[in-house]
Amino acid sequence: MEILANFCPIVSTNMKIMLRSFVILVCLSFFTANANAQLQWKEVEPGIWKATAGVPEKITLLSVANVTPAKNALQQLPAAQFPLAKDEITSRVVDGKVYLKFPLVKEEELFGLGLNFKTVAQRGRVSQLHMDHYGGKDDGRTHAPVPFYVSSRGYGVLIDAARYITVYAGSAVRVDSKNPPELMDRNTNKNWDSSPYSDAVEILVPASGVDIYIFGGPTAMNAVQRYNLFNGGGYLPPKWGLGFTQRVPTLYSQSDILREANEFEAHNFPLDFIGVEPGWHSMAYPCTFEWDATRFPDPKGFINSLLQKGIRANLWLNPYVSPKSSLYPKVKPFSGSHTVWNGIVTDFTIPEARNIFKEHFIKNHISLGVSGYKMDENDGYDKWLWPDVATFPSGTSAEQMRQIYGLQMQKMTDEWYREQNQRTYGLVRASNAGASNLPYVIYNDYYSHPDFITALVNSSFIGVLWTPEVRASKSAEEWVRRMQSVCFSPMAMLNAWADGTKPWSFPEVEKAVQEVATLRMRLLPYLYSTFAQYHFEGKPPFRSMNLVDGFAYAPQVTAGKLDATLNPYEAKTKSDLKDQYMMGDNILVAPVFAGEKSRKVYLPAGKWYDFYTGKLAGENQVITVQAELEKIPLFVRDGGLVPMVPARRQAPKAGEVLPLEVRVYGTAPGTFTLYDDDGTTFNFEKGAYNKVELKSANRSMSAPANGKPFGYDKKVTWTFMTK
Amino acid sequence: MEILANFCPIVSTNMKIMLRSFVILVCLSFFTANANAQLQWKEVEPGIWKATAGVPEKITLLSVANVTPAKNALQQLPAAQFPLAKDEITSRVVDGKVYLKFPLVKEEELFGLGLNFKTVAQRGRVSQLHMDHYGGKDDGRTHAPVPFYVSSRGYGVLIDAARYITVYAGSAVRVDSKNPPELMDRNTNKNWDSSPYSDAVEILVPASGVDIYIFGGPTAMNAVQRYNLFNGGGYLPPKWGLGFTQRVPTLYSQSDILREANEFEAHNFPLDFIGVEPGWHSMAYPCTFEWDATRFPDPKGFINSLLQKGIRANLWLNPYVSPKSSLYPKVKPFSGSHTVWNGIVTDFTIPEARNIFKEHFIKNHISLGVSGYKMDENDGYDKWLWPDVATFPSGTSAEQMRQIYGLQMQKMTDEWYREQNQRTYGLVRASNAGASNLPYVIYNDYYSHPDFITALVNSSFIGVLWTPEVRASKSAEEWVRRMQSVCFSPMAMLNAWADGTKPWSFPEVEKAVQEVATLRMRLLPYLYSTFAQYHFEGKPPFRSMNLVDGFAYAPQVTAGKLDATLNPYEAKTKSDLKDQYMMGDNILVAPVFAGEKSRKVYLPAGKWYDFYTGKLAGENQVITVQAELEKIPLFVRDGGLVPMVPARRQAPKAGEVLPLEVRVYGTAPGTFTLYDDDGTTFNFEKGAYNKVELKSANRSMSAPANGKPFGYDKKVTWTFMTK
Repeated sequence: MEILANFCPIVSTNMKIMLRSFVILVCLSFFTANANAQLQWKEVEPGIWKATAGVPEKITLLSVANVTPAKNALQQLPAAQFPLAKDEITSRVVDGKVYLKFPLVKEEELFGLGLNFKTVAQRGRVSQLHMDHYGGKDDGRTHAPVPFYVSSRGYGVLIDAARYITVYAGSAVRVDSKNPPELMDRNTNKNWDSSPYSDAVEILVPASGVDIYIFGGPTAMNAVQRYNLFNGGGYLPPKWGLGFTQRVPTLYSQSDILREANEFEAHNFPLDFIGVEPGWHSMAYPCTFEWDATRFPDPKGFINSLLQKGIRANLWLNPYVSPKSSLYPKVKPFSGSHTVWNGIVTDFTIPEARNIFKEHFIKNHISLGVSGYKMDENDGYDKWLWPDVATFPSGTSAEQMRQIYGLQMQKMTDEWYREQNQRTYGLVRASNAGASNLPYVIYNDYYSHPDFITALVNSSFIGVLWTPEVRASKSAEEWVRRMQSVCFSPMAMLNAWADGTKPWSFPEVEKAVQEVATLRMRLLPYLYSTFAQYHFEGKPPFRSMNLVDGFAYAPQVTAGKLDATLNPYEAKTKSDLKDQYMMGDNILVAPVFAGEKSRKVYLPAGKWYDFYTGKLAGENQVITVQAELEKIPLFVRDGGLVPMVPARRQAPKAGEVLPLEVRVYGTAPGTFTLYDDDGTTFNFEKGAYNKVELKSANRSMSAPANGKPFGYDKKVTWTFMTK
Repeated sequence: MEILANFCPIVSTNMKIMLRSFVILVCLSFFTANANAQLQWKEVEPGIWKATAGVPEKITLLSVANVTPAKNALQQLPAAQFPLAKDEITSRVVDGKVYLKFPLVKEEELFGLGLNFKTVAQRGRVSQLHMDHYGGKDDGRTHAPVPFYVSSRGYGVLIDAARYITVYAGSAVRVDSKNPPELMDRNTNKNWDSSPYSDAVEILVPASGVDIYIFGGPTAMNAVQRYNLFNGGGYLPPKWGLGFTQRVPTLYSQSDILREANEFEAHNFPLDFIGVEPGWHSMAYPCTFEWDATRFPDPKGFINSLLQKGIRANLWLNPYVSPKSSLYPKVKPFSGSHTVWNGIVTDFTIPEARNIFKEHFIKNHISLGVSGYKMDENDGYDKWLWPDVATFPSGTSAEQMRQIYGLQMQKMTDEWYREQNQRTYGLVRASNAGASNLPYVIYNDYYSHPDFITALVNSSFIGVLWTPEVRASKSAEEWVRRMQSVCFSPMAMLNAWADGTKPWSFPEVEKAVQEVATLRMRLLPYLYSTFAQYHFEGKPPFRSMNLVDGFAYAPQVTAGKLDATLNPYEAKTKSDLKDQYMMGDNILVAPVFAGEKSRKVYLPAGKWYDFYTGKLAGENQVITVQAELEKIPLFVRDGGLVPMVPARRQAPKAGEVLPLEVRVYGTAPGTFTLYDDDGTTFNFEKGAYNKVELKSANRSMSAPANGKPFGYDKKVTWTFMTK
């Protein structure tokens, strides 16, 4: 079009629009004529294939994330074959939409398809992936509607479109199916099934075209690794990001916050960073992004005072710009047609708009020492977000904008911190495909403790991090249970913005809460190495059991009992394993929820040991564990090594050298790759890190490279937990 | 395209597709260039205006319903002005979608937008109108996702597209709004509102174009009348359709059903028609549409035996054709790409497909005396319905097919019965715009009694009928309460398909249940006249209070209380009147739900009287009534006449002459138009009916026309209920 315009500089705007339409439409008609063409698969990275259906859009998830594949790491993975029969993958472009079909076989299970809160296994489900507050139903409306699924057969499929994609994950049945379900008469056959067998995933992409990626295995974990590495590898948080964080009540002033920090010290409770909630803005909802002079008379002094205590500040915001903000007149020309809470919505796909924000944020926050942001409400909620009829100056549609908004904000702010060679670690409520290497953890308001754990399990399939944050609780029991699980998540956070809770809000469990927070601090070497694995190998730090080698969960199908109102279709139910997960390679976490006195734990193959006692917990079996209030059940694999440091309140500073204790579980010989670096910069990306090998068989640690950061004593204490 | 093809008969299929695409796309580009053109409104019927945005599709809701406006009746309505400022209605066509905007003013309320179950007032809500099982949330997914709304200011708007239309009913706020909301700082202003004021309805229609209709008032009722009359007027059921109906357990044989009919007689319980559930099919889910020879060895004899008892048979079906059906090979070429429960999905937009069904149904059911159908599962449920990637031989998209399937089935079967000059009255689970004159009542499995009443209220805005059917209950109290309200609905139905319940299942309330069913029978003259009003004047028989002259409900807004997890946005709540309604002009129905000992009733202006006692209940006020278990609270307006007949078990047969009692309430003089006809044929459409005027002032009834059916004694008993 621009070429055409150059040739005819005097054409009117209307003519231009007509010409553009004509060119686009002739292209479309070409693709319509080729609607049923076989997809052409090209191996773009080792074990990663790409094909294009129709004419993809300019704005896609990966274009926004602008990912740089971790090529070297991808080459280290086992070789993968193209996992499906190519002629069984079909695509059609009909009326400007892409119809895709991928084959499935019996016993195959599917995972992913957005950050689900109630289900792990996705086969047989239908989702329309749509950025939104999670609303209590796994229907695709969620904070990370990532159009990526992983098969138990060891491959993954990504649909790279910033659109409301509908996925029939083995629910639709075609007349011409090769493996049709059995015909049954519901009148007479008790086995009649309301959801007959389907042998395909079918996908509707409401876009003129789309790039499709297939990630090979051979294992499901390998497919996930490829996905994460294709996105640049998982994000390695700064060490302080793995410490404890408290978010203070909305209207806390700088002196309130400093007092809060002192209280943490008095309670000897870990604290690495503090979340400053809306009150720091001179106006919020919409936001000014400017310090409120009454509550924060001296932002620089305030942040310095915190830093002197070893505490970083994280600032809450939502993206809607208040007319009272100095940013407003600057970004107005780059904003959409609709307001959110009276704030304008900046079109961050436009570089100038990003630059206006960058300048303001660096000058007013980052240069003062602000460590990061909590970016709220970019997921939207239909009632107050921009509607799908909104328009944006870049021409990006409202639908695309909704799918990418959080992703774009992550990418933008990440770049600012990278330019400072400073790692950030913050919170975001909206993410999508391509986010593996972005420094944010997802959260929401939904607050079901069991469902929060299911979200943590599901986050591992789709390259995002999730925190089951704690706010308030109805009882001391619930409080300690929530605190325990958040300490075994990507971000150990208490969010007191509305409730004003403190870790010690329930005195009867203060000690137990303090212990689990301290345990997290003691586990930092293990946790940091696990995140390094996310970065260098693409393995998610917190992971579904379904990604563990040697683990096979056989779901139980229960026949539906006819009930005219509760189950008129006699729908069968299938059990789903969604309340336990792995932290890294060695530690199995089995959270307990308030009211539970015991729980079942599905152990992967081999022997597993109690983390606390080192005793054998089970071997190739499902165990039932008694739920001691003071402890979250943790199990370690046979030969599992767990490097730990002494109890401490904060992550170590660069240059600090800590004593190392390595716990050894079981009797099999084990190794562990202990990772370390300076903990705060991106120098590790240029090789400034150490990976040393711990071996239990000879109680050895390999020598760290000289001149590269390594914060542990070379003399290791070996603790053999299993007698 | 066909013209082009005629010019070049030798073009290849690919060439044809390219040519067609080219022609379509050149047209589209023309409309894209005119994207912002002002809509041109044309008055197509008195007080009904139409405009077209873009290029409408061939398959739309009204094209399927193929409505014939009731022109004469429309001319009787009060004159209406175009209700909005034309320049404030805008349309744009962007990327093959239509964006629409309609203005709103303060205090304006909106109703309709699909069959909602929890909310009546729609302003501030967002819905994507999508045919579906109702899932417990008013989000647009429902059995009648009618894209029509009615304003309290006295106009209606219909978007005639068979698409998933998203409606922002006064939720979206534009930067360029003429009436922007007030800017507030949430940090400091307690009045901050998470849903700021919006002055527009905005609508996204995912279609290349659409016809838009505006229905003038001056009142909201007038707008609804125009809508219904535009659709041909409301459907007038046969008299027997207003009697009681029992649906029998799935596998009941013909002898079981005859035994059931005898039991109703023994219990002296009304019964006009019986619903025969899936067991009549030789195979069901999918269906054969053929009688099962073991359970129904003699269908003709069976139906005759029922008819001799004055009872009609209604057959259950769902539309999915079993491979075991004789219909299967015939309709296969006219079926879609996907199966539902292994049954093929006939493309009823193709006349040949409809004819195949017609021939089979008339020969095997209707000619035997089958009175109608219950057409199940045409609403779909994502997990087992055809997916949105399905294709159909007519080229109708899966999305369109989903929006119209139930509507098309209603229209098709209605035509068969019209050809027989025989009125039918049945059940359907999917409807849409254009259905006012179709002979079906909507039902579902959702089964919340209060929400069923809200659906009944909402049905009045959108030209559909709804029954709060009874299945089972947890207690005798719930049973009688449900029975009471279903007797004050379009279809008095007990659906025992799964539960095997009988009206007398709770012996302790048998008498109360029998009394309310008998009261319905006694009210037939009133009820039938009320349905005639639906037909001739377009007034819904069961109607929201918001459609009543002199009624003004002032909702109460309650400030939101901050709760970090339950209400993090401090969302305000607004009360909604959704549990009372009018049956016709005179009777206000205030159902009571199990557990309630009393309830509030909002009376319209003037004096209102207790139906049972004739005593003054209140005047211009909200009253609290005690909830006697045996009676559903009913109130009659001052001067309200209620014509009744003596207790009976069945609707009168043609030619029967019944004694008439007219109850008179209050002291104001009143009139009532009593309607009668033969009760079963369409002869009334050719004038074979009587409307007589009853006047309480002089206790008179005007003379019925000779030679036209009139089934009442000319000597009327006048009962003045108010002493």
